[in-house]
Amino acid sequence: MIIVPERAIPDLLTRDASYKAVENVFAAMASGDAYNFPVIRESIGHQDALYGFKGGFDRVGGSLGLKAGGYWPHNLDTHGIINHQSTVFLFDPDTGMVRAMVGGNYSTALRTAAASSVSINHLARKDARVMGMVGAGHQAGFQLRAALEQRPFEKVIGWNYHPEMLANLEKVAAEAGLPFEAVDLDGLAEADVIITITSSFAPILLEHHVSPGTHIACMGTDTKGKQEASADLVARATLFTDEVAQSISIGECQHAIAAGLITEADVSQIGAVINGSHPGRHSADEITLFDGTGVGLQDLAVSAALVDLAVEKGVAIEVDL
Amino acid sequence: MIIVPERAIPDLLTRDASYKAVENVFAAMASGDAYNFPVIRESIGHQDALYGFKGGFDRVGGSLGLKAGGYWPHNLDTHGIINHQSTVFLFDPDTGMVRAMVGGNYSTALRTAAASSVSINHLARKDARVMGMVGAGHQAGFQLRAALEQRPFEKVIGWNYHPEMLANLEKVAAEAGLPFEAVDLDGLAEADVIITITSSFAPILLEHHVSPGTHIACMGTDTKGKQEASADLVARATLFTDEVAQSISIGECQHAIAAGLITEADVSQIGAVINGSHPGRHSADEITLFDGTGVGLQDLAVSAALVDLAVEKGVAIEVDL
Repeated sequence: MIIVPERAIPDLLTRDASYKAVENVFAAMASGDAYNFPVIRESIGHQDALYGFKGGFDRVGGSLGLKAGGYWPHNLDTHGIINHQSTVFLFDPDTGMVRAMVGGNYSTALRTAAASSVSINHLARKDARVMGMVGAGHQAGFQLRAALEQRPFEKVIGWNYHPEMLANLEKVAAEAGLPFEAVDLDGLAEADVIITITSSFAPILLEHHVSPGTHIACMGTDTKGKQEASADLVARATLFTDEVAQSISIGECQHAIAAGLITEADVSQIGAVINGSHPGRHSADEITLFDGTGVGLQDLAVSAALVDLAVEKGVAIEVDL
Repeated sequence: MIIVPERAIPDLLTRDASYKAVENVFAAMASGDAYNFPVIRESIGHQDALYGFKGGFDRVGGSLGLKAGGYWPHNLDTHGIINHQSTVFLFDPDTGMVRAMVGGNYSTALRTAAASSVSINHLARKDARVMGMVGAGHQAGFQLRAALEQRPFEKVIGWNYHPEMLANLEKVAAEAGLPFEAVDLDGLAEADVIITITSSFAPILLEHHVSPGTHIACMGTDTKGKQEASADLVARATLFTDEVAQSISIGECQHAIAAGLITEADVSQIGAVINGSHPGRHSADEITLFDGTGVGLQDLAVSAALVDLAVEKGVAIEVDL
């Protein structure tokens, strides 16, 4: 088997490779060639940790396996390591033998960034020029960096509950040679694309904050109770997601569903747009919203790409089982 | 992290170590110190394979993780490798970091054998002398070998749908210096202990095949629809299991439950007997039945023992992540 250690991954995994892996697997999900297994998520009653498994199988890409791990909230304080810890295990779909083990920490950040990036490429207006951010934490930098590659943006604007953290976004904008402007939530009306990436449990982005024609990627809501966009904003938008079942139960669409403002049939798979079986955006005035909930197949796809990259660059560890 | 490769495990793992690990974790389950996660089991639509994850956490033993893998029915014919393929991954419960990867094929055979062996030790009559087997496949040899260590048995008797396979049992009996006798199902009335280990979907062992005072370990039923013992035999016995939720849904007790002959409250955890909180067998005439469904915690416990053994014997592979 092959091991790709976490320490090797930041030098191996490009945004481009992550983008391609995620776009391909979203397409495979929509065409019925790939599916995610039910998610296991357990509050284990030790260290306040959440632990679980996200598995899936992509019969076209040949990826079978799972991401295992979770959230250990005291890691940074107690052990000086990051709180999100995960590892991906790939299996040979022809034999069931373990094929690879791949660090899942850095790749989770990049696959999550790739998801909103894929949605921008397929759903934002071609003339989008102002990029808006809600949230400015560690993951927000990854989302912004990937997003800026999808359109010739001319400016980044951003809002965060703790304004002092907006320096994170300003830095990423500067890397891309773009000006950054801190705005209040009303100021987001200037944005052509908005990414929300917070851990909020109450709506931040309301209907009047968003102009017609905007594409929104809601990336923070992955649990029952979390919410970034108001239910009426969600109901007003044309809705896309990675996986419909997750979107309506633990994703951003859960609240509009619960309020009876939308039904499951109102939410389309982004993969259908990638495949061309859904036309995507219909008009320049339409608000499109991508609900990125995060699926195991993204992790498997990016990890499979990492195995190939690690072998090619000679940094894969081979273990004789 | 530490890797214990499959090839090293037959020389490392003893029946004694498997027995202790399984007995301890059954006790921890009954005392509320260890629990299994919901099982993921997927028919992936490729190679007729069944694939999934059995996870759990034992806060006393410190084992957190999962067994991943499944059943690839064409492996032996197509690739010359065994059809059951699995791998165990252990995580550090304090940080969520992966701690070890352990081959799961041989250890699954031994942990399954250990389960019926634990049940015999705690539930069979002390004067049990005749060991009966229903089933004579590959796994039956493991079950019998472990069982014979629990009482001073004087004879092994056995029945199998294909009688020519009974030579497997005769060989194991001979290793222990015991005579073997092929019997018809009525002949099992002579047995003091009976292990059933088949893949049957219809009852084989009926009430009139079993004498008062017998201990039965039903080890083959792990799926909806499978069945080894008749529902009225199950209803007549005092019932024990590894995990009640599995016993009544996918284990041997599913049929007596469905027929309304027993309720969930009639099935006790074997761990309660090990802990002393359940008295176990009440009388020499009682039929006791252990429904062994197989839980992830068994795999984690045996694998954690294997990590220690592999380090001690110098065959662990250490990988710097």
